[in-house]
Amino acid sequence: MAADNEKKLVEEITSMDVDFAQWYTDVVKKAELCDYSSVKGCMILEPAGFAIWDAIKENLDRRFKETGVENCAMPIFIPESLLQKESDHVEGFAPEVAWVTHGGYDKLQERICVRPTSETLFCEYYARKVHSYRDLPKLLNQWCSVVRWEKTTRPFLRSREFWWQEGHTAHATAEESRERTEQMLNVYADFVEKDLAIPVIKGQKTEKEKFAGAEATYTIEALMHDGQALQSATSHDFGDGFARAFGIQYTDKDNKLQYVHQTSWGMSTRIIGAIIMVHGDNEGLKLPPHIAPTQIMICPVMQKKEGVLDKAYELEKELKEAGFRVKTDARDKNPGFKFADCEMRGIPLRVEIGPRDIENGHAVLVRRDTHEKETVEFTDLAKRAGELLETIQHDMYEKAKQHLENHTFTATSIDEMEDILDKKTGFVKAMWCGSKKCEEKIKDKTGASSRCIPFEQECIDDKCIYCGKPATKMVYWGRAY
Amino acid sequence: MAADNEKKLVEEITSMDVDFAQWYTDVVKKAELCDYSSVKGCMILEPAGFAIWDAIKENLDRRFKETGVENCAMPIFIPESLLQKESDHVEGFAPEVAWVTHGGYDKLQERICVRPTSETLFCEYYARKVHSYRDLPKLLNQWCSVVRWEKTTRPFLRSREFWWQEGHTAHATAEESRERTEQMLNVYADFVEKDLAIPVIKGQKTEKEKFAGAEATYTIEALMHDGQALQSATSHDFGDGFARAFGIQYTDKDNKLQYVHQTSWGMSTRIIGAIIMVHGDNEGLKLPPHIAPTQIMICPVMQKKEGVLDKAYELEKELKEAGFRVKTDARDKNPGFKFADCEMRGIPLRVEIGPRDIENGHAVLVRRDTHEKETVEFTDLAKRAGELLETIQHDMYEKAKQHLENHTFTATSIDEMEDILDKKTGFVKAMWCGSKKCEEKIKDKTGASSRCIPFEQECIDDKCIYCGKPATKMVYWGRAY
Repeated sequence: MAADNEKKLVEEITSMDVDFAQWYTDVVKKAELCDYSSVKGCMILEPAGFAIWDAIKENLDRRFKETGVENCAMPIFIPESLLQKESDHVEGFAPEVAWVTHGGYDKLQERICVRPTSETLFCEYYARKVHSYRDLPKLLNQWCSVVRWEKTTRPFLRSREFWWQEGHTAHATAEESRERTEQMLNVYADFVEKDLAIPVIKGQKTEKEKFAGAEATYTIEALMHDGQALQSATSHDFGDGFARAFGIQYTDKDNKLQYVHQTSWGMSTRIIGAIIMVHGDNEGLKLPPHIAPTQIMICPVMQKKEGVLDKAYELEKELKEAGFRVKTDARDKNPGFKFADCEMRGIPLRVEIGPRDIENGHAVLVRRDTHEKETVEFTDLAKRAGELLETIQHDMYEKAKQHLENHTFTATSIDEMEDILDKKTGFVKAMWCGSKKCEEKIKDKTGASSRCIPFEQECIDDKCIYCGKPATKMVYWGRAY
Repeated sequence: MAADNEKKLVEEITSMDVDFAQWYTDVVKKAELCDYSSVKGCMILEPAGFAIWDAIKENLDRRFKETGVENCAMPIFIPESLLQKESDHVEGFAPEVAWVTHGGYDKLQERICVRPTSETLFCEYYARKVHSYRDLPKLLNQWCSVVRWEKTTRPFLRSREFWWQEGHTAHATAEESRERTEQMLNVYADFVEKDLAIPVIKGQKTEKEKFAGAEATYTIEALMHDGQALQSATSHDFGDGFARAFGIQYTDKDNKLQYVHQTSWGMSTRIIGAIIMVHGDNEGLKLPPHIAPTQIMICPVMQKKEGVLDKAYELEKELKEAGFRVKTDARDKNPGFKFADCEMRGIPLRVEIGPRDIENGHAVLVRRDTHEKETVEFTDLAKRAGELLETIQHDMYEKAKQHLENHTFTATSIDEMEDILDKKTGFVKAMWCGSKKCEEKIKDKTGASSRCIPFEQECIDDKCIYCGKPATKMVYWGRAY
């Protein structure tokens, strides 16, 4: 019975080449990242999934604080009248919010929604707190969950509740808010590339795709293993739109009343979906060492033999003291199960150690990304583990970058675009005239949405890929999650 | 105008001897700990308030993890049918939950509530996850906010949304769940006494006061400056009650089906109310150094003089490197304002430094708790600051302990109890027969509820203070927040 279960764990993952969607679901389930409950469309973040989010949070939070941002916590609810204050914003979110109508046995006088995002709450707060130019800038962020009443849901990618951070800032000038919007996009891009080992395209969203109420939305776009795009974080410049709707004004140095300029920016648990779909393989999850909650798993072999477990714990202690996140798998399971389980859960580096290794004064290190093994003297273990983790981090990024490059194409006709999306999959760079109508037609015809107008522009052609009129922008197009 | 505002900041605090409730509200507002919004009864945790909660969280989370607990995140919603599975539990919570009835434009088939607590969600999860004795224990915790539809609210003490952690564990035996309940109560007590400098009484709640659905509830009770009690954390032993209601069973080593035994335990943002009301004084907040987000504030005097700010930043850097949480108040304000502001916000230690100090190679250290000043050579600064912070932590605890002892009384008649509560204020230790009726009568007559049956029992008398029948327990009684 036990042996059957152990085998099943490994066998039950669908190959990603056979059915990518099923492979994804299998990994999420087998690595115990998240689970469903009787609350339709809402996830449970299981300990392994939560630990990844926590590692992301710790890293990003430090980066935010380095730019002067402070954390706070806004209420979970928004009264309907407050949500309605900015017209584009309410239009964008009202169709997908959850409405609370009763408190205990009483009907509420005004219904309130569970926050889908908190611009309106921060605006109301800033309107009360900001009086003088001395009160600016306001640089606040909160880590919380938000609710959007989605019809169809998928673990991490789309769910009725998801976890995120939302930064909200208020500045004296339009220039400052523009700078902050770019600065935070760069924080996200740097984090995703350096720590999640995922290369991204930085650019601006089109008018059609921008955030409800924003003047401009910046985005980082990543490419999944199956050639579909995933929006990985966004940063919005609101100009003074919200400030006018909410009356957020300050007295400047010349004693004149001015509106503030605002931004907001967010990254969510969706990014865990990106980690799975960029790095994962048929053995399961593959976590980049920088944010892996467990970087090294020590797997004792023949652990009932005297001295094996002792040595394993000794190495664990030593590696911990060297600053690594380490665990020992001392469960009463056979080594084959432990190795496969460790790979399934994406632990970057595995240390195998049995009686003969101990006799010879060495252990075997196995890389999760390449399955390469090497024998390392105990005395060199911490040093070599550190080198290997950095190599893994580097190689995972390079591999993902290679995949991105191999799956980024250019097209000068709509048929060519469709053909690429069907057969090769990936991003298609193509010229665009700037009209919403062409953007919609391109999506209708090919299923690809405009992912972004990249900051790094190229001239592929002089005319729009759809209407043939003069092109104003080169756009990344892609089918997306 | 500016000078007026600066003066106001200090003047506007009501004296705690004149109106304790108003003093409390003033401190919360002036120290910018929390604020209200148009969301009735819900708090905004402002940066200064959130930072205290974050420091509490970091400290407690480390303590939890040392006992093997892992974090996760459960959904924000509970379907009505799930909430109803355990009858005592639903009876306790249904009257005070917020009901979501609509998602977007659609009416939900079954209404769902915003979690008031998550026992039911954890139970459902454990029912799915636990099969064998090998799957036990389950030791999970989540940090989140919960919603209870309160009629009257006060910052930190009672609000419709509050932040907390809720730990939920499942064990093989009744003995193990009892042990875990006690273990977590001890974790709370140790944290509150050692790090928050608040002495507590440990004990068990009466049947009347225990958690809805629990077999036993343990509590730590603290005494505020005005002589009222505040329940500071609770730990519940559920026995197998929830397991039977939710069908959480496992196969034991003899292949027999058994129910698990469960616990839950929580501490909330209420504890910030305790910090304010135990330690605060007429100058404002007074934070214990161990959890003060800023332990040391450097206040430059005549900062426009050459070299003053440079020296302040140099000291800040040095103190940071020595491991302290330090800030420099370089705002364009007069020193008097900065000193008062620093006291208002409860920063344990202030460093005053002006041109003459720099000339003489020293700075002035000022303790928040006693206002004592001392001149310290720059070369000794870090060492002395460390000593002073530990002294402050120690003295704050001793002062609070003295207050607790001076306000803990014994009574052998109900008139005596009432007289103590009216005139001296504090805890009254008195004997009780164990009947719910007497407990209710005592509350009706004196306004004091049973705070706990302390683990450390004394025999004050042989008969119940109310009915005169033989007493079974000595109980702490008190008027409470």
